[in-house]
Amino acid sequence: MTDNSARKLRILTPGLGAVSTTLMAGVMLARKGLGKPVGSLTEYGDIDGVPLTDLVTSLDDIEFGAWDIFDESAYEVAARSGVLSPAHLAAVEDELRAIRPLPGVFDPVWVQALAHADHIKQGDNLMELADQLTADIEAFRAAGERLVMISCMSTEAYLEPTDVHADLASFERGLKNNDPAISPSQVYAYAAIRAGVPYANGAPSLSVDIPALVEMAELHGVPIAGKDFKTGQTLIKTILAPGLKSRRLGIRGWFSTNILGNRDGEVLDHPDNFRSKEVSKLGVLDSLLQPEDNPDLYGDITHEVRINYYPPRGDDKEGWDNIDIFGWLNYPMQIKVDFLCRDSILAAPIVLDLARLMDLANRNGRGGVQDFLGYYFKSPQPTYAGERVEHNLFTQEEILMDAIRKMAAG
Amino acid sequence: MTDNSARKLRILTPGLGAVSTTLMAGVMLARKGLGKPVGSLTEYGDIDGVPLTDLVTSLDDIEFGAWDIFDESAYEVAARSGVLSPAHLAAVEDELRAIRPLPGVFDPVWVQALAHADHIKQGDNLMELADQLTADIEAFRAAGERLVMISCMSTEAYLEPTDVHADLASFERGLKNNDPAISPSQVYAYAAIRAGVPYANGAPSLSVDIPALVEMAELHGVPIAGKDFKTGQTLIKTILAPGLKSRRLGIRGWFSTNILGNRDGEVLDHPDNFRSKEVSKLGVLDSLLQPEDNPDLYGDITHEVRINYYPPRGDDKEGWDNIDIFGWLNYPMQIKVDFLCRDSILAAPIVLDLARLMDLANRNGRGGVQDFLGYYFKSPQPTYAGERVEHNLFTQEEILMDAIRKMAAG
Amino acid sequence: MTDNSARKLRILTPGLGAVSTTLMAGVMLARKGLGKPVGSLTEYGDIDGVPLTDLVTSLDDIEFGAWDIFDESAYEVAARSGVLSPAHLAAVEDELRAIRPLPGVFDPVWVQALAHADHIKQGDNLMELADQLTADIEAFRAAGERLVMISCMSTEAYLEPTDVHADLASFERGLKNNDPAISPSQVYAYAAIRAGVPYANGAPSLSVDIPALVEMAELHGVPIAGKDFKTGQTLIKTILAPGLKSRRLGIRGWFSTNILGNRDGEVLDHPDNFRSKEVSKLGVLDSLLQPEDNPDLYGDITHEVRINYYPPRGDDKEGWDNIDIFGWLNYPMQIKVDFLCRDSILAAPIVLDLARLMDLANRNGRGGVQDFLGYYFKSPQPTYAGERVEHNLFTQEEILMDAIRKMAAG
Amino acid sequence: MTDNSARKLRILTPGLGAVSTTLMAGVMLARKGLGKPVGSLTEYGDIDGVPLTDLVTSLDDIEFGAWDIFDESAYEVAARSGVLSPAHLAAVEDELRAIRPLPGVFDPVWVQALAHADHIKQGDNLMELADQLTADIEAFRAAGERLVMISCMSTEAYLEPTDVHADLASFERGLKNNDPAISPSQVYAYAAIRAGVPYANGAPSLSVDIPALVEMAELHGVPIAGKDFKTGQTLIKTILAPGLKSRRLGIRGWFSTNILGNRDGEVLDHPDNFRSKEVSKLGVLDSLLQPEDNPDLYGDITHEVRINYYPPRGDDKEGWDNIDIFGWLNYPMQIKVDFLCRDSILAAPIVLDLARLMDLANRNGRGGVQDFLGYYFKSPQPTYAGERVEHNLFTQEEILMDAIRKMAAG
Repeated sequence: MTDNSARKLRILTPGLGAVSTTLMAGVMLARKGLGKPVGSLTEYGDIDGVPLTDLVTSLDDIEFGAWDIFDESAYEVAARSGVLSPAHLAAVEDELRAIRPLPGVFDPVWVQALAHADHIKQGDNLMELADQLTADIEAFRAAGERLVMISCMSTEAYLEPTDVHADLASFERGLKNNDPAISPSQVYAYAAIRAGVPYANGAPSLSVDIPALVEMAELHGVPIAGKDFKTGQTLIKTILAPGLKSRRLGIRGWFSTNILGNRDGEVLDHPDNFRSKEVSKLGVLDSLLQPEDNPDLYGDITHEVRINYYPPRGDDKEGWDNIDIFGWLNYPMQIKVDFLCRDSILAAPIVLDLARLMDLANRNGRGGVQDFLGYYFKSPQPTYAGERVEHNLFTQEEILMDAIRKMAAG
Repeated sequence: MTDNSARKLRILTPGLGAVSTTLMAGVMLARKGLGKPVGSLTEYGDIDGVPLTDLVTSLDDIEFGAWDIFDESAYEVAARSGVLSPAHLAAVEDELRAIRPLPGVFDPVWVQALAHADHIKQGDNLMELADQLTADIEAFRAAGERLVMISCMSTEAYLEPTDVHADLASFERGLKNNDPAISPSQVYAYAAIRAGVPYANGAPSLSVDIPALVEMAELHGVPIAGKDFKTGQTLIKTILAPGLKSRRLGIRGWFSTNILGNRDGEVLDHPDNFRSKEVSKLGVLDSLLQPEDNPDLYGDITHEVRINYYPPRGDDKEGWDNIDIFGWLNYPMQIKVDFLCRDSILAAPIVLDLARLMDLANRNGRGGVQDFLGYYFKSPQPTYAGERVEHNLFTQEEILMDAIRKMAAG
Repeated sequence: MTDNSARKLRILTPGLGAVSTTLMAGVMLARKGLGKPVGSLTEYGDIDGVPLTDLVTSLDDIEFGAWDIFDESAYEVAARSGVLSPAHLAAVEDELRAIRPLPGVFDPVWVQALAHADHIKQGDNLMELADQLTADIEAFRAAGERLVMISCMSTEAYLEPTDVHADLASFERGLKNNDPAISPSQVYAYAAIRAGVPYANGAPSLSVDIPALVEMAELHGVPIAGKDFKTGQTLIKTILAPGLKSRRLGIRGWFSTNILGNRDGEVLDHPDNFRSKEVSKLGVLDSLLQPEDNPDLYGDITHEVRINYYPPRGDDKEGWDNIDIFGWLNYPMQIKVDFLCRDSILAAPIVLDLARLMDLANRNGRGGVQDFLGYYFKSPQPTYAGERVEHNLFTQEEILMDAIRKMAAG
Repeated sequence: MTDNSARKLRILTPGLGAVSTTLMAGVMLARKGLGKPVGSLTEYGDIDGVPLTDLVTSLDDIEFGAWDIFDESAYEVAARSGVLSPAHLAAVEDELRAIRPLPGVFDPVWVQALAHADHIKQGDNLMELADQLTADIEAFRAAGERLVMISCMSTEAYLEPTDVHADLASFERGLKNNDPAISPSQVYAYAAIRAGVPYANGAPSLSVDIPALVEMAELHGVPIAGKDFKTGQTLIKTILAPGLKSRRLGIRGWFSTNILGNRDGEVLDHPDNFRSKEVSKLGVLDSLLQPEDNPDLYGDITHEVRINYYPPRGDDKEGWDNIDIFGWLNYPMQIKVDFLCRDSILAAPIVLDLARLMDLANRNGRGGVQDFLGYYFKSPQPTYAGERVEHNLFTQEEILMDAIRKMAAG
């Protein structure tokens, strides 16, 4: 097992893409004083005046490791992604070039847009692939660092849980039988938990959000969390909607459209993958507005979410929201929000925060679903089936801070 | 004094304009089942499951009274204002026609755009005018209702407090001497407090936010509150900014422009009056972001607010915000918000809530500045000079609910 | 045949919906001096100082007739559509109630969203239905008016022309054989042309844009035109794109999305019907920008069009465009256009203009495709297969005015 | 005099700022094949299939010269302005460093924001300064190139013409007497015309748009033109408004606001300078819409223009337009345009085009106001007082092309 007294923390990312390389470059630049880790609560936040940096691993002690299905160095990926400036890339080129991904677990049925991938683990069944991941993990661990795994993989095709996901025994049988309902990200999650490594899922794919893996995480006392980093449009939605509700302004419709041009956009252009994202994004409003308790105000809402692959933008995403609200005597008003954002710039500090806080939870012996991290996710993983999850960003922040306060206290 | 056990509550509004007539019509329509009081927390909110309607005066028990400087009935004003549909107006025409304003206190130096006003109290000095207001109030009171005064007057010219505002004795001398630094809204506030009637100020004018009247309110144990109803653009600002700050996203600039075409816009077209509004709107960000504690993120913000009189819109205001934010490694992003709102539709339920909650405070013996009502104001009146006031809508809501809970309990 | 010296002109509309009833009500209101026919070139335009109203039928001499697949009067349709104010509707209620549709030609395979229609002509084959339409037309004609038919039907499912559309003989065989590739709008077009009545098509459906009907129109010397009224977003596109091209600003992407909530939106929510609209909307940029001649500027454009059914809006359509342009040295810039429009308000004057100008062409003996009317259409019908059609609104206006000038000259 | 058969053309720019250095760098980059001169009609346009590049000076034959009131090289200015990427700047650094400005003519009363300037010609009166400019010009001419002067100076304070501007004799007396109504840009214009060098004015300042200098230009047969490069918001306005007018859609209001953060913004932040720009921008709509001929449609328009200095943007300007239009029966609709543009990127190709076309006119012996260049200006200089100038971009393009065609024909 990991030595929790180790000083260094290695962040392992299945998926070496725009998000993970932006994180890596940023940590390296911040260490050199060439960039600020803006957007990171663990860098800029405090608990009752005590900086969170006192509680989590220092940037100086963070290392990286990655798997990917294309054999490109972190530098090549970052340069191709077009997120960071040439000057930023040049300043950390050597460090980024030194990071090369291990071969990934992949099956094109889950991400058809990446069917041309060629840096893939081979094995007779999924359990063999899990074993190979375990070997990779143990090799990382041998260096004496604490480990945490944050999945930055592409969105997988939509999946309704089946019997194979119902309990750990079935799931392990499924791994051996190559059950087609087990996705690659679930193989990573399984390997991580088995090795005692906390696992968080940044994509809307089901991944660790299945009974089998929750059971396993509780059994092994390993923290897990997910799903789908809350970055652009949904972040704004979970800020604005609570404000409108606070003022008891009614809502008749919320139309959200996105244009994005990076690999994420390309993957989501396929209806199976879009479905995962759509389900993740649509759940938000119901939970926030509780229409059953507020029928006059929220009883009849049309909520639509569209994602459009639009190459001219690259990693620069644009989210356009139209919100049809009503006030006194039901007179209609409209709010339009246009968010010209950058996907990886918003996601990178979330990965950093999650890695540090999952590790903090692990050091505090908190196994199973870490619901205090819902603040970071579009679709927070419930601790039990059917649980109503909180989406209000401000309430989520309170829950997060309370949990950290408790862990800090001891 | 008022009999606090009276069943009925009469809302007195200096200013019979679009806001107050929209409130009146809405209460009348709601009583007939022809409209919903959307946007009112006292109608749709609850404390631990107990509806707030259990704590405040029923819509059935609300009456109105008004002063204005033009002699038009509430119906004429509402019809001219163009806020409500012909069908809504027709359904309550008779009731609205029955509401006629008493002559108002006015001096064109404070609102040059209304210099043609002709329904004005005459007297040798401001104290005589205050006495006339007292007589009006006592006449209303004679009917046996509880009273509350919510000022819906136009924004007065900008005023820095002078010696005459420093204490009650000076102020009363000023009233008798016609001190030019005493504005009409201050005469209303003085008369209200003297008569034991709670007074809240919906405009950005200084009004009751001076030491003399705070002293008087505490002396008489009368609730006061202000200033400037938080309706459109600033409402959105106090929702969005806390969300950005929660995520530690940096802000480089916030440019806010408004176009509006009603009498409010006409009044604010004069630089003296605009100055009052600008000061009210600009204070928000500093308090929300605390740049001194977050120099990396909020240490260098350009915050601009513009208000433009633009007649094509009538009462339909439009607020356009451009927000220049930055994330990880200071990469810039932009948020644009276009709020197509309706001024009076947003303000009417605030007047209703304030009237009910000021009255609740009064019945609970809470005199002086009611800081728990900051939720409703762009520029909450501090309880003492230099106090840092809260602008975060969500924190304000918690403070509000806590105060109501305490009053309900006891 | 029609007596072209008749004073009155009857506009026949297959489809008695929001567009046609808005036209009808507007003509009636304008005649009473209760509304202005804004948006109509034939009302407000002139040729060399001579008002176009001197050349076309006066509003006083316009009558209406309609077919529809639901049995509602024009008043019921207009009231349900929510386009016009109660006051406007009330002023012409009786006239609108008097207009009742004749049963329509319909097959749900073409518009699945309207499968519940119940006011439908019955017959053994499509030729029988055409004959029934002819009988309807002759009944209208008997009153001694000139006739013109402007289709205001819903968008039909996408159709690639087949052999049955290739020539008139095949088409007539197809009518008798119930060929499944013949759509209802084609039956109207056939009946109109056979009866010598000009026919224009306001939807993106293929309708009269097939060799068989072009041949027939030339044979009978009957004017035809189409297709798809150029109203909201595409109108703006054909204004802006020529301006950008004039200045030699490059374009990398044009993303257009629409939200609309009327029956049109409901129909277009089905992929087959959307396909018709999409093809119509997508053709515009290529023709305007001629990428083959301007590869540096327009050689690599991503052009996307989305239409979203969003009930909160009713007939109030919103079109949002994001345009990624570039200038000197290829530096990128962005233009966003948000058009809060009203579908039927923009379309009604187009129907009026087309009716008058198609009739003018008919009186001038111009048979076949009226390409001078391309100004009014998103996807102007070419006069021969493969013709490059003009989309630049300003060039289209010049062509239109030249043609009118020639007809005026006689 | 200049030898018009000289092969090379030197563009002289009073004002070495963001616009002129962006032009210079772009020409240099294009010559190296490292950038495309996008936005230049003289590069990408043709007359009847003949490329305009056949008629104007090749990029290879263009040289530069400049005056400025700060002593920075073109490289330093470009680097500070932040318009071009580091990579672009590096590729032409040496060439840009070699361009240093001659001392400029300046008086802080005309541009208070630049009162700290220190690279300024000294002399007893304005005529002496003009003589110094003449000497500069003759020194440039000695190298055997053709010359053209395009003013890229900051906007000067608003100026109504006085008697000193009424004729050439008065103006020359004024130069000798240091008449305070003569602005620096007028000294440049005078010197240019006297030396036979075409002069065009890119700012909204009056400059060459006075009877004295028009008289002088006609006398000397020297082309002059102005004023105020048509780049961002006004460019869009002169594209959109003709389109709305073509369709006879009515307009009730047009509200235009700008945010910009470069030196231009800083200068325009002073009311005297803003006034020059405002007058230039406001004239557009009246000329385009001719309200007197279209009272139903354009008889009652509120047109407002705001310019706001907002440092976070630097050279990236944002223009936001709200247009209140109406259609059939006067139902209101709205268009919003948000133009995220780059000031210098839009202006640079205009300077290139103007330089080439002014020179073409000069070679064709066309003296006086070149009204065919109105296409490039927000406020085209009339050829005689009171002339109605054309603002429709499409009509302007036709006039431009006709004039070039005639000059090409010889």
